[in-house]
Amino acid sequence: MPKQVRVPVEEARALCIDAYKRRGVPAKDAARAAEQFVLCDLFGIRTHGTRRLSSYIGRIECGGIKPAPDIRVVSRMPAVAILQGDGGLGTVIASRALEEGIARAKANGIAYVGCTDSNHFGANASYGWQAAQAGLVCLSGTNGTPTIPPTGGKMSVVGNNPIGYSAPRADGPPFILDIAMSVASRGKMRRARELGEEIPEGWGLDIDGFPTTDPGEALEGFMLAIGGHKGYGIALAAEMLGALLSGGAFGPEIRHQFKQPEQPSNISHYFLLIDPDATVGREAFEDRMRAYCDWIKSSPAADPAQPVRVPGEGSAANHARNSVEGLPMDQAEYERLQGLADGSLKGEVPDA
Amino acid sequence: MPKQVRVPVEEARALCIDAYKRRGVPAKDAARAAEQFVLCDLFGIRTHGTRRLSSYIGRIECGGIKPAPDIRVVSRMPAVAILQGDGGLGTVIASRALEEGIARAKANGIAYVGCTDSNHFGANASYGWQAAQAGLVCLSGTNGTPTIPPTGGKMSVVGNNPIGYSAPRADGPPFILDIAMSVASRGKMRRARELGEEIPEGWGLDIDGFPTTDPGEALEGFMLAIGGHKGYGIALAAEMLGALLSGGAFGPEIRHQFKQPEQPSNISHYFLLIDPDATVGREAFEDRMRAYCDWIKSSPAADPAQPVRVPGEGSAANHARNSVEGLPMDQAEYERLQGLADGSLKGEVPDA
Repeated sequence: MPKQVRVPVEEARALCIDAYKRRGVPAKDAARAAEQFVLCDLFGIRTHGTRRLSSYIGRIECGGIKPAPDIRVVSRMPAVAILQGDGGLGTVIASRALEEGIARAKANGIAYVGCTDSNHFGANASYGWQAAQAGLVCLSGTNGTPTIPPTGGKMSVVGNNPIGYSAPRADGPPFILDIAMSVASRGKMRRARELGEEIPEGWGLDIDGFPTTDPGEALEGFMLAIGGHKGYGIALAAEMLGALLSGGAFGPEIRHQFKQPEQPSNISHYFLLIDPDATVGREAFEDRMRAYCDWIKSSPAADPAQPVRVPGEGSAANHARNSVEGLPMDQAEYERLQGLADGSLKGEVPDA
Repeated sequence: MPKQVRVPVEEARALCIDAYKRRGVPAKDAARAAEQFVLCDLFGIRTHGTRRLSSYIGRIECGGIKPAPDIRVVSRMPAVAILQGDGGLGTVIASRALEEGIARAKANGIAYVGCTDSNHFGANASYGWQAAQAGLVCLSGTNGTPTIPPTGGKMSVVGNNPIGYSAPRADGPPFILDIAMSVASRGKMRRARELGEEIPEGWGLDIDGFPTTDPGEALEGFMLAIGGHKGYGIALAAEMLGALLSGGAFGPEIRHQFKQPEQPSNISHYFLLIDPDATVGREAFEDRMRAYCDWIKSSPAADPAQPVRVPGEGSAANHARNSVEGLPMDQAEYERLQGLADGSLKGEVPDA
């Protein structure tokens, strides 16, 4: 077990900002991008936290991500906008899109913002959290490199497109759901392969489109979506809402962030925001969300030691703890962060 | 096998309209409600088509559904509205909400309409089809009587809340996804029980929250959601977007349409509509949807006899055929429709 450290939030944020600024990312955008990593680490979603800085930086260094893109906002209607991301950091493009969306939803009661020409944007959860802090309900999503075949197919046509739903509630953490469409993550499959374990049937197909319980075969082959045609359909819908509706790229036009790091990924995201002040009123909505969550949490658990929870509560508990104790990292991760910040280390893009 | 007939669309529509008008439903609302049944039968979704007329009428006759409700539109912002349904027919309330939403989305680029105090609204698919005819992208959903326990729970807290996504495309049927959150429908479980067959693991839990392959036990117990916590979370999000955001009822305040037919169900629906004319332009969007669907359909099928399809294509093929040949019904269903229309039959609410 590598040595664990706790890095104060302020320090981690400053290290990310320094690393980005050193590669030409403007100060305000560096702060935006750093915030998404910090939030993910606060939530305990370490796969999407500061651990990713090295690959993002690596992609800036090899020309796949523009540090200072010319992001354009195209808007024909006050409540609708598209951000053309010009190949910048996904966390910058998505953060700016969310800011646009929040302002437009506050003014109009509702807003849609799509972003094109973007790169990996982290996790829906951190944007959902920010939207909830602003008092808004948020639906979000992104497309990605195809990894899921259509129902009855044997070629990947759609990404494992994660979607998010979030909403604020009174006297409790926001409702935050952030889910990818595959039954299991590639990370889980890789762990099973490392441990020499089988994976359950229903997780994946081999390269010929046949069911397999061999994690290596599934990693070479295809991931299966939750509920078969249901998860496949939601993944298509997420791509439709992000890429198709905003003029972005799909399928064959998308580049893999690790396999083709020196090229822009051409991915798209979307944010749909609704202001409860335009429906029942913010306070009434948040009170009602509290009653709803309380009712669910009062239901009996199969195992009394594992009380029923509402999506987002685990992340919120981590956030509370990590805000005080600092972000949990391996010593080596902390040192890499320092090296990226002071320029002594270059970014590293992992093998796909 | 009961005798099958084909009923011309015009005739089926007229019979539904007559049946509703005879129970005091205003002519325009009767036409709205009839259209949803006709569309579902056209799509081949017979469980949500004219077959349901008898139970809807039965609920009007026993006072559970108001034939002429006082539906109120509450709107604080042009792009956002709530329809308070006053316990009317769900198909009327939802149709009127969709009309409101289409008009508001055309004017503002985007719209949210929630409906409260409603009853069973049929299927998302028919509303999605209507939205696509108007050139709009649509997200919709409804809540219902709790049938799904939270992850790790042993009490139903949330309905099998179906959600819909739809979008128009050039030179082809609209993309329409209409999915409930359970792995399998109660209908499938009932069929397995009738046939004395086991159900696969993962479909349901018994009354104590333990996995079961006995369809009778699962029907007495709980339905499992697709992807475990993922489907459970989406079901919560659907209730949040419909009921919570529009001031409607949830969980314990909802009445089962068959178990408590004489009481209003108190369910809620939502429609989120986006006008591609506010983003990339309607023609550009529909062209892009065509390219997207063509690309997916060009991918190889595991079984070459079963080509890959995009959600909505099966329904659209049925629609084309049934428009010409008439709606497929059992002779007895056709006679019941006639009896409900001429008043010689009363509605019948099935056992839950």
